[in-house]
Amino acid sequence: MIKKIDLNCDLGEFYGMYDERRDSKIMPYISSCNIACGFHSGDPVTISKTIELALEHEVAIGAHPSYPDLQGFGRRIMNLSAEELEACILYQVSALKGMTESLGGKLHHVKPHGALYNHAAKDEDVALGIAKAIVQIQKDMMIYAPAESKLAEVAKDVGLEVRSEVFADRQYEDDLSLRSRSLEGAVLHKKKSVLKQMASFLDGVVHTQGGLDLPITAETVCLHSDTEGAAELAKEIHDFLEKHEVEITSA
Amino acid sequence: MIKKIDLNCDLGEFYGMYDERRDSKIMPYISSCNIACGFHSGDPVTISKTIELALEHEVAIGAHPSYPDLQGFGRRIMNLSAEELEACILYQVSALKGMTESLGGKLHHVKPHGALYNHAAKDEDVALGIAKAIVQIQKDMMIYAPAESKLAEVAKDVGLEVRSEVFADRQYEDDLSLRSRSLEGAVLHKKKSVLKQMASFLDGVVHTQGGLDLPITAETVCLHSDTEGAAELAKEIHDFLEKHEVEITSA
Amino acid sequence: MIKKIDLNCDLGEFYGMYDERRDSKIMPYISSCNIACGFHSGDPVTISKTIELALEHEVAIGAHPSYPDLQGFGRRIMNLSAEELEACILYQVSALKGMTESLGGKLHHVKPHGALYNHAAKDEDVALGIAKAIVQIQKDMMIYAPAESKLAEVAKDVGLEVRSEVFADRQYEDDLSLRSRSLEGAVLHKKKSVLKQMASFLDGVVHTQGGLDLPITAETVCLHSDTEGAAELAKEIHDFLEKHEVEITSA
Amino acid sequence: MIKKIDLNCDLGEFYGMYDERRDSKIMPYISSCNIACGFHSGDPVTISKTIELALEHEVAIGAHPSYPDLQGFGRRIMNLSAEELEACILYQVSALKGMTESLGGKLHHVKPHGALYNHAAKDEDVALGIAKAIVQIQKDMMIYAPAESKLAEVAKDVGLEVRSEVFADRQYEDDLSLRSRSLEGAVLHKKKSVLKQMASFLDGVVHTQGGLDLPITAETVCLHSDTEGAAELAKEIHDFLEKHEVEITSA
Repeated sequence: MIKKIDLNCDLGEFYGMYDERRDSKIMPYISSCNIACGFHSGDPVTISKTIELALEHEVAIGAHPSYPDLQGFGRRIMNLSAEELEACILYQVSALKGMTESLGGKLHHVKPHGALYNHAAKDEDVALGIAKAIVQIQKDMMIYAPAESKLAEVAKDVGLEVRSEVFADRQYEDDLSLRSRSLEGAVLHKKKSVLKQMASFLDGVVHTQGGLDLPITAETVCLHSDTEGAAELAKEIHDFLEKHEVEITSA
Repeated sequence: MIKKIDLNCDLGEFYGMYDERRDSKIMPYISSCNIACGFHSGDPVTISKTIELALEHEVAIGAHPSYPDLQGFGRRIMNLSAEELEACILYQVSALKGMTESLGGKLHHVKPHGALYNHAAKDEDVALGIAKAIVQIQKDMMIYAPAESKLAEVAKDVGLEVRSEVFADRQYEDDLSLRSRSLEGAVLHKKKSVLKQMASFLDGVVHTQGGLDLPITAETVCLHSDTEGAAELAKEIHDFLEKHEVEITSA
Repeated sequence: MIKKIDLNCDLGEFYGMYDERRDSKIMPYISSCNIACGFHSGDPVTISKTIELALEHEVAIGAHPSYPDLQGFGRRIMNLSAEELEACILYQVSALKGMTESLGGKLHHVKPHGALYNHAAKDEDVALGIAKAIVQIQKDMMIYAPAESKLAEVAKDVGLEVRSEVFADRQYEDDLSLRSRSLEGAVLHKKKSVLKQMASFLDGVVHTQGGLDLPITAETVCLHSDTEGAAELAKEIHDFLEKHEVEITSA
Repeated sequence: MIKKIDLNCDLGEFYGMYDERRDSKIMPYISSCNIACGFHSGDPVTISKTIELALEHEVAIGAHPSYPDLQGFGRRIMNLSAEELEACILYQVSALKGMTESLGGKLHHVKPHGALYNHAAKDEDVALGIAKAIVQIQKDMMIYAPAESKLAEVAKDVGLEVRSEVFADRQYEDDLSLRSRSLEGAVLHKKKSVLKQMASFLDGVVHTQGGLDLPITAETVCLHSDTEGAAELAKEIHDFLEKHEVEITSA
């Protein structure tokens, strides 16, 4: 059984009017966070405040770059050219990295957002565009990528350190992709089901939609901050891991 | 007489559709450039291309941050809070710094754009907001500031290295501010007048609107890329300086 | 005593991710709304949904144009030229008008947002820019303007129908301007104080910060949707007016 | 042979800094224009100026809506939901319609821009989203759609008046789609080839890449304003049509 695991959450997903209350509620239960860089959400002030909040809670800081789509919250696939995709990643991660260092921290990782994350899981060109941009910033930068994805494969190939990400409250298909939110049963709503899936992850296994028990590498678990009861669920998962003597750490 | 001087130009001031032809024409005559960071102009692709163009021509790279005003090209004063101003500078300069380093260069300086530059020349709070943000990024970063301005004063106070900037084609008022573009005689249109003012700068003097000959420190001269005949005028100034054995350098 | 009054609220102030829950809670208690047009908040989907929600509740629809400042939620003064200001108002109000008509409604009024509203209350040029743009759209359009403001004056001069707006939960200064939020006592937090001020408005009087009882014309009262307990307070004011047999209507 | 034809051009494709010189050069040769609405290009001031320029030249005014992609100039396909697409079209066309009416004109037609135009030519859902939005604005609005496209089909089905658009300087494939710009021979660079294709259009025929002579309905011809020698080519086409006694009209 796994002895340590990382709990991550997408934060700073605000714009114009900052509401730090939501983020600060989940901070005590996570070990790393992915901060919106301004392309799907996040303006300079929210980024600055979120970095400070993470530093205060000793939570590892990651950049959370997106397609340039503020109106659509980065949830819509866009067909950027390789040049455009690389430049967009470079810009966003650079902004986060420089701001984090200026405020006394160090950028720990990169995790693509929304449609870009899903697109990169399956599309080799998109995965490569992301990986090539990140490698230019730092050769051995850590990237959070879906377990069993094109992005994880490609990122390893170019020399990035990959952390395999799983979702505690999402149902997996038999090919280890996440069940689409447009289908029934995509999200595990019951606390009991979430904790059962967490327990399964600790054993390196996931129970899929088709009823299979497949091996999966769970190095970091993504929690959500924007659903009802998010902080409570984060606390449940946090306590569950502590009870099972699994260390929660970004190291 | 001055033995060396820097020639700088605002570049990468495009958006959406990049036109590198204009910038590449002026590159041979300058020693440093200020690249738009995305808030008044410049998207990730234009920034990337402009950095590469500057590296190719061995032109020193600076960040050219602005008020967040794409629609108004950063030419309209906005009353940002101190927190907002600092965060906006941090974000933009960080993006430029990280991208420059990723592409194999090093950020050489920062020069505020448009309304922000003019505002910071006279308003101590705005000057301080800019200076405090830059100092967080790098303690001894070089900043291009108007000769005899609040920004120059404040930047020195916080420990930044200040390079005093003058304009070859702009008329100076008796208080050493630039004559407003809304007034007649604000811009020197004749090549002869521009070169005469350049010659005067080399002696540390400027002939003002009121007819005074006042001392001025000319360490970097701003050329424009967006006016008709800009490249030709740049070549004239470049050749004039070479003829007078003044070294053109960003060092 | 006044026999009828309009209750208005700024709505559709979302972007990217729509949260209609907040708006729908306050809809039952108001007679008109001001919908964000995309410059400080509001994207095409939120605008569309908010218009539909208003039509469903038979709430009169107004455009709520702003300075172009998504990052700052339109709360920062910008020095637009007369041409820029007029064009920005024309664009936003046209968008709202066309969308409202396409969805089966009719644009009822215009109310400027945030910094633009406050700026226009005191600055004649800004007031005139707004009024001239609106008059181009419709000669006798209704505009919501602060009681005793430059905007109200200028709007009447150009032929617009002006509705005098007051704030139930804001303290008034002796010159009938709103007490700045940066000062103590700017906002009335107690339900009792708000209702007392409402009662005073019905008599055409406001009790100012300096202790004066000054005449004020209250034709529409602005409620807030974004503060804690906003819907409850709206209900209190609604019930208070019904109890005093004051008709709540946008007519 | 055709006795009359419309010549259209995409105009107002600027942002932040307006350059009316390019547009005004082509205005004398066209009968209708498609004005950028702010989503791929165009801010309120450029829109306002372009409308005035068109009114001055008695050129029919159309809205030129796009995917919301300022950075990519609307040239990148985005997978918007049906709701998002409809709202985006409604917003943009409403803004153009209202501004045109406010400035004393009347909206003549709608023509989608860039990736949206190409996407709608082949994808029925996208075509339907556009058509449904436009029909809400005005039942019998005219739409410019590619000859032999899904958009033309769908638009007719919902009752819009369709004007069949062809490109004088673009090579057609055997399925009457435009040859992709990424392939050789996509653009006709020689004046002679362009005029030959124009002559062919007048006979209702196009000579395709595969050597076929296929029937095509040419009701409006798109000219470009952003290529070198655009105004000269426009004049050539204009003179060619006059010589052949074909009336150039938007009617």
